[in-house]
Amino acid sequence: MKIAVLGTGVVGQTLAEKLISLDHQVWIGTRDVTETLNREAFKNWHLQNHKVQLGTFAEVVGGAELIFNAVQGAVAVLTLDSCSKSDFDDKIIIDVSNPLDFSKGFPPSLIDGLSNTHSLGEEIQGVLPNAKVVKTLNTMWCELMVNPHLVNNGQHTNFICGNDANAKETVVGLLQSFGWKKENILDLGDIENARGTEATLLIWIRIYGARKSGAFQFNIVQ
Amino acid sequence: MKIAVLGTGVVGQTLAEKLISLDHQVWIGTRDVTETLNREAFKNWHLQNHKVQLGTFAEVVGGAELIFNAVQGAVAVLTLDSCSKSDFDDKIIIDVSNPLDFSKGFPPSLIDGLSNTHSLGEEIQGVLPNAKVVKTLNTMWCELMVNPHLVNNGQHTNFICGNDANAKETVVGLLQSFGWKKENILDLGDIENARGTEATLLIWIRIYGARKSGAFQFNIVQ
Repeated sequence: MKIAVLGTGVVGQTLAEKLISLDHQVWIGTRDVTETLNREAFKNWHLQNHKVQLGTFAEVVGGAELIFNAVQGAVAVLTLDSCSKSDFDDKIIIDVSNPLDFSKGFPPSLIDGLSNTHSLGEEIQGVLPNAKVVKTLNTMWCELMVNPHLVNNGQHTNFICGNDANAKETVVGLLQSFGWKKENILDLGDIENARGTEATLLIWIRIYGARKSGAFQFNIVQ
Repeated sequence: MKIAVLGTGVVGQTLAEKLISLDHQVWIGTRDVTETLNREAFKNWHLQNHKVQLGTFAEVVGGAELIFNAVQGAVAVLTLDSCSKSDFDDKIIIDVSNPLDFSKGFPPSLIDGLSNTHSLGEEIQGVLPNAKVVKTLNTMWCELMVNPHLVNNGQHTNFICGNDANAKETVVGLLQSFGWKKENILDLGDIENARGTEATLLIWIRIYGARKSGAFQFNIVQ
């Protein structure tokens, strides 16, 4: 599949690398291509992952069949606004971002206006009403998104929500190719449920603080 | 121990019943004793649990060595305000409540002003600065609070936070008497971390909605 990954940070890199290993065609999107290529860390990563093509957000979205949103939550809407909105029509956007506000240090809170009674997932769906926003993978360390076997033999829970049932089914298929077992993907319903999964970051970040490691996951047991 | 349980609802009843079974002296507190005794459901429960004594919030707090707050989050501060504040001095308050706002139906949100950058746990600690507020057990169905073995052979996680290390140690001991294994009680730090555990309700309530059962738990795996 032709897949665009928005965001050149660790999350975007991790997703792009996995998608390439699964033989997808992958474009990674950034605000400013020259600036990104001048960043030492990105340049080194790109040398080792040269199959990943680089473009502006607008360019990579235009050519993609499916889009991952992996930019920082604080700039997600701005990022999508920099693209042609019709380029998202009928496409699946897998939103793995979280509206974290680091302005007051650690632990971050959620961005004012994007918590409790609203969410970034809903905001993105509102900005792009013709896209199929699927929120998933946002409640874990990025290594576990694409390598779920790294903790507890892969026995832990990934939440998914979104308004379009077929889009969620496609995403579940992609997650299975990442190593997720179907029975560990919990469908919460429509995109409003992003209020729940994004709020999970408020406990995630504190468990991370207590354990000094992101190598843990929520396993819903019964 | 002489223990006061504030709140005559299902959570308060469940806690009181367990504490009696462990040979504690238990008082359950309510706003209006006569009114509570006229409620059919409470009357029936009390007939079967006659060792639990009933009193006003102020009365039961006055005589207690340790206090459980199990009233609805929306009335928690009002409840504590109806007592003599000095009666809480140096006492442990185990706060199991959540600031849920059901005014717009299901799923509830958190009460405005008590989410994200603040929490009910912190609010209670602020109102009663000489008490030792310990937030715990608030991320699960009440049956599991006192019978952790009911799911996954007791292998799942209970969060705890509070400013006083000795108070938390006492509470961990009480939780062990409920059946909790010490290694499954995760200390997140001071009471500010209630922002994380209370936010967990926003996902809890949605998992409950998807599963139609409260018999599940978060197990942090690594």
